[in-house]
Amino acid sequence: MSKLTDVPKRILIGRALRSDRLGETLLPKRVALPVFASDPLSSVAYAPGEVLLVLSIAGLSAYHFSPWIAVAVVVLMFTVVASYRQNVHAYPSGGGDYEVATTNLGPKAGLTVASALLVDYVLTVAVSISSGIENLGSAVPFVVENKVPCAIGVIVLLTVMNLRGVRESGTLFAIPTYVFVAGVFLMIAWGAFRGVVLGDDMRAPTADFEIKPEHPGLAGFALVFLLLRAFSSGCAALTGVEAISNGVPGFRKPKSRNAATTLALMGLLAVTMFCGIIALASATDVRMAENPGKDLVHNGVPLGPGYVQDPVISQVAEAVFGSGTFLFVVLAGATALVLFLAANTAYNGFPLLGSILAQDRYLPRQLHTRGDRLAFSNGILLLAGAAGLLVWVYGADSTRLIQLYIVGVFVSFTLSQTGMVRHWNRLLATEKDQAKRRHMIRSRAINAFGAFFTGLVLVVVLLTKFTHGAWVALLGMCIFYATMTAIRRHYDRVAEEIAAPETPGEDTARPSRVHSVVLISKVHRPTLRALAYAKLLRSDTLEALSVNVDAEETRALREEWERRGIDVPLKVLDSPYREVTRPVIEYVKSLRAQSPRDVVSVIIPEYVVGHWYEHFLHNQSALRLKGRLLFTPGVMVTSVPYQLESSEAAKLRARRRQNWSAPGSVRRGPAERTKDTSPRT
Amino acid sequence: MSKLTDVPKRILIGRALRSDRLGETLLPKRVALPVFASDPLSSVAYAPGEVLLVLSIAGLSAYHFSPWIAVAVVVLMFTVVASYRQNVHAYPSGGGDYEVATTNLGPKAGLTVASALLVDYVLTVAVSISSGIENLGSAVPFVVENKVPCAIGVIVLLTVMNLRGVRESGTLFAIPTYVFVAGVFLMIAWGAFRGVVLGDDMRAPTADFEIKPEHPGLAGFALVFLLLRAFSSGCAALTGVEAISNGVPGFRKPKSRNAATTLALMGLLAVTMFCGIIALASATDVRMAENPGKDLVHNGVPLGPGYVQDPVISQVAEAVFGSGTFLFVVLAGATALVLFLAANTAYNGFPLLGSILAQDRYLPRQLHTRGDRLAFSNGILLLAGAAGLLVWVYGADSTRLIQLYIVGVFVSFTLSQTGMVRHWNRLLATEKDQAKRRHMIRSRAINAFGAFFTGLVLVVVLLTKFTHGAWVALLGMCIFYATMTAIRRHYDRVAEEIAAPETPGEDTARPSRVHSVVLISKVHRPTLRALAYAKLLRSDTLEALSVNVDAEETRALREEWERRGIDVPLKVLDSPYREVTRPVIEYVKSLRAQSPRDVVSVIIPEYVVGHWYEHFLHNQSALRLKGRLLFTPGVMVTSVPYQLESSEAAKLRARRRQNWSAPGSVRRGPAERTKDTSPRT
Repeated sequence: MSKLTDVPKRILIGRALRSDRLGETLLPKRVALPVFASDPLSSVAYAPGEVLLVLSIAGLSAYHFSPWIAVAVVVLMFTVVASYRQNVHAYPSGGGDYEVATTNLGPKAGLTVASALLVDYVLTVAVSISSGIENLGSAVPFVVENKVPCAIGVIVLLTVMNLRGVRESGTLFAIPTYVFVAGVFLMIAWGAFRGVVLGDDMRAPTADFEIKPEHPGLAGFALVFLLLRAFSSGCAALTGVEAISNGVPGFRKPKSRNAATTLALMGLLAVTMFCGIIALASATDVRMAENPGKDLVHNGVPLGPGYVQDPVISQVAEAVFGSGTFLFVVLAGATALVLFLAANTAYNGFPLLGSILAQDRYLPRQLHTRGDRLAFSNGILLLAGAAGLLVWVYGADSTRLIQLYIVGVFVSFTLSQTGMVRHWNRLLATEKDQAKRRHMIRSRAINAFGAFFTGLVLVVVLLTKFTHGAWVALLGMCIFYATMTAIRRHYDRVAEEIAAPETPGEDTARPSRVHSVVLISKVHRPTLRALAYAKLLRSDTLEALSVNVDAEETRALREEWERRGIDVPLKVLDSPYREVTRPVIEYVKSLRAQSPRDVVSVIIPEYVVGHWYEHFLHNQSALRLKGRLLFTPGVMVTSVPYQLESSEAAKLRARRRQNWSAPGSVRRGPAERTKDTSPRT
Repeated sequence: MSKLTDVPKRILIGRALRSDRLGETLLPKRVALPVFASDPLSSVAYAPGEVLLVLSIAGLSAYHFSPWIAVAVVVLMFTVVASYRQNVHAYPSGGGDYEVATTNLGPKAGLTVASALLVDYVLTVAVSISSGIENLGSAVPFVVENKVPCAIGVIVLLTVMNLRGVRESGTLFAIPTYVFVAGVFLMIAWGAFRGVVLGDDMRAPTADFEIKPEHPGLAGFALVFLLLRAFSSGCAALTGVEAISNGVPGFRKPKSRNAATTLALMGLLAVTMFCGIIALASATDVRMAENPGKDLVHNGVPLGPGYVQDPVISQVAEAVFGSGTFLFVVLAGATALVLFLAANTAYNGFPLLGSILAQDRYLPRQLHTRGDRLAFSNGILLLAGAAGLLVWVYGADSTRLIQLYIVGVFVSFTLSQTGMVRHWNRLLATEKDQAKRRHMIRSRAINAFGAFFTGLVLVVVLLTKFTHGAWVALLGMCIFYATMTAIRRHYDRVAEEIAAPETPGEDTARPSRVHSVVLISKVHRPTLRALAYAKLLRSDTLEALSVNVDAEETRALREEWERRGIDVPLKVLDSPYREVTRPVIEYVKSLRAQSPRDVVSVIIPEYVVGHWYEHFLHNQSALRLKGRLLFTPGVMVTSVPYQLESSEAAKLRARRRQNWSAPGSVRRGPAERTKDTSPRT
């Protein structure tokens, strides 16, 4: 296993960091940018194409609206970036949208944001990997011909790597991101130079196709609706912008300022790339359609269902660099890698958000241990399963998956920005310093505009995308919300039930004596050890207990007991039906009935084995008895383990597991940051 | 659930007996016959057809050999019945083939027989249900049109009934069996009367078809081989004969004599029915072929793949009684019911054999508890899964499944009879009484002839059926054999490892003191109870232990500790990575390192919940800690349960489960019979 996955791991994620070096790895901006921005930057690989796709419904003429839609996306991007710069300054702890919404709008809003983010992470994996496969497919046709298996393969690869606890390396994370950004900028610059200076006629591979509009001559309200839908699709470029606001503690000092700068830089890069690609697409006459096989026509003949529509970024690259050239292949590869890294982001974010929700008792409490392997594993598997299911159901088609994507993002944008407005209102209520007040009022204005604008987009997205798939995302959110509410309610009920009484005497009758009972089947090392330990405990009474399921065996036991002169009385229970559990339970109950204030301590010798299949061969009756005894009041159950030789194997495995490192540690910064106010069990 | 399955349950299996009436239900012969004979008697529903099927390969002319094959089967049947009458007298404990082979031929032979029987039980279910569906289908076409789903449905029904512990009722068991036997005899008698006395020309529905032989004009060795193959198929009539030899303790006294009489009666019935059906099939010109769609020709045209070949018994019934008549439908229904009852036999036999093998440590020990629900459930599910898989793979085609069936039967016949020869040899070595000696010599001769004849048939079956599917059965036997050998080897190794030293002083340093440590996360009822219990145990030292995963929480814990004046010192371990397990393990190890002869007792407060999903919400860190602690030497781990209100639900469920009754109790007789010499854990 180790050998097999080492090579792709190093290529994709970089060499694992040693756990004790975690504290030193605060991120400089040049590393933080690629670590946090792979998700939002990679969005430009699919967002421009989605805009063109939707516009094509009204025919080629509608393509002329694409610059205006780009402008709207740019304005929205600047708004969101400006808003989150306020978040970063106000919440340097890296609280993220969940904390902002919970603190300022209450737990229900917080839980809504959390549900939206969980759905979002699933979709980030599904969309990014599908789009990555499509980009890779523009250079390697085999990949796109086997889209679903390849996409599932990448999900499995990421899952295995994250389950094994491959630590991210910021530096190596940077390489594909910078190659991708440099590649896109080079493409834009070279395209502009060829077009404007050299006057070359660059033509995309689809330039000669015609579009048969599904609704030709759209006008009035229908056209506005279509443009809004195209805008909604373009908003996919904004996914992942909020990531930096979760990661402030991972930055070098001054943390907030560095994070804000990185955020601005990321916004600028994303906007430039998005507009550049839209412009080049328009200059090279890229033609895209929602149903390319039916709606794209070449020489009057539809292209047919076999036609594979390449992503806009690869069509533009082909036009600018030429098909099959070195730069074209490098850009396609870098695009795919950045998209896979964006998916990997979700593998870090999903379990982390889970552990924060577990702190607030919305998820099983054991998940809240930071870096706990099992907790992370469950999260990773749930994420991979859900994303894999979506990829399979939607045939790894990024266009169809994007319809689901944007709802969650804008739910959390809107609620987070609304929360920020409340935040400033609260601070303004007490702040006297005029300079600070002015600053706060400015911030509040930015967040208010952000809340308004993102809320508007949310409405637009819901209206235009609901039937196209957004309902699936909403359904997912509702399921998460309902589950988490139910879990929280359960914990609250239990906490009330077990709360310690204030007056110590309130609890009924304190126990007075303890009867110890050691379960014996045969005389061997495990039972002798259990007897020796039991004697040390000096309980009020001590006896050995055996169940007579076979007369001969019992006689042999009695004989050996006497022969060895064991100084503990041996009691044998009869069991006509060869049961073990029932007679013991009944005996324990009878002891309790004789003296209800006493406690019975049942001591069970247990084998410790090393392999999972050995569990089927040992301890089964002990386990079942323990399970039943726990339901009996006034009983304590003690296991005295006897380590069989084979248990060494399990000990080694456990030690190996301890050195596991949770994914996403780099972006989370050192351990001190986390705040935990929930009770623990 | 209860309501839904009650009706078919009563119809098929009869009203459940109360558990305390088990002792009274010794079987009279008239009830024992149907209980034990449903399996062998039902075989006549498919065995005659299989003979004709194979003969058809050589064309219609080969049908003339069918009486001779019937004669061979009859001779074999008498041999086997005579042989098993010796078993019944020699082993009144109901040892069965496994015990006979183990005692007389050694454990390897015994294990071979056991593997063969396990495979056999699986095939009994698969073959009987498939054939039952085919018989039912001759009256209800829908059933045969949806063969696989219907067959799987019956398997599921039987599985559910047996899992729920529906006790067999011997009396109601009898009705379908006697209806079936009476129906077949009536058919034979009425057919003979119509044919011989009235001179009616009864014609089977397939009488007008012609057979296109796959190998026309077979002669010499090839013909002999074909006849041997037909004979092998006819031997399917012998499956299940050995069942009575397992059930001797269930008979009324004199047990052995009654069992032997029942065995003889059963043999007589089976032989008469088998021959009668073959004779009627010949008289009514039944035509059957291995590939009926291809090889059956009507007016020169093959019948095509859509043709469904009815079982020979239903074709004959149609010819004798007339299609769709009352008697025809009753016979078809009774045949199907008897076949389903035969399958149900395996549901009793498989887990019972499993528990006997578990006593000899070839299977996990916990299975050996008589009537233990979990043990039976595992066996039942394994059986149903394997049979379901076979039915699905072989398309519920009884003809193809029968190819696998007969190997296992004859392996156990041969080994059991060989074992009996050894048995008599051993007795003869010491016996002086001449009358008894003569009797033994006679028995030995019968068993020797039985061993020789069944061994010969085994060779014939292997030669003629190996490539037709017998290899699958052999593979299954090898898998069972290898698994059971491995389990036994494991137990032997462990038994050696844990054997108590003979001299008490040999064990190194006896423990001297015990340090108790109570794990605390918060002050609430469960932890207070754990503290109270821990104090009762009067260990040498006692302290409360908490892990500081959150500074604020820990401070609150300390404050409450002091405020309440709890008189146990509270120790807090630091955990920079918010882990719980590791700091506790390390602390326990350090205690042990300070005084290696001491024992550490870790006391963990635990929640007891009532629903499976609540387990995910509680005790997870406690469970994991316990799991790790067990690997640490010198530690005992005590659970102090706190029953949450919801645990009531689980208590009720457990109580309900206790009243469960294991399937097949009737045929096994009362509990005293079982012998158990294996160690228990």
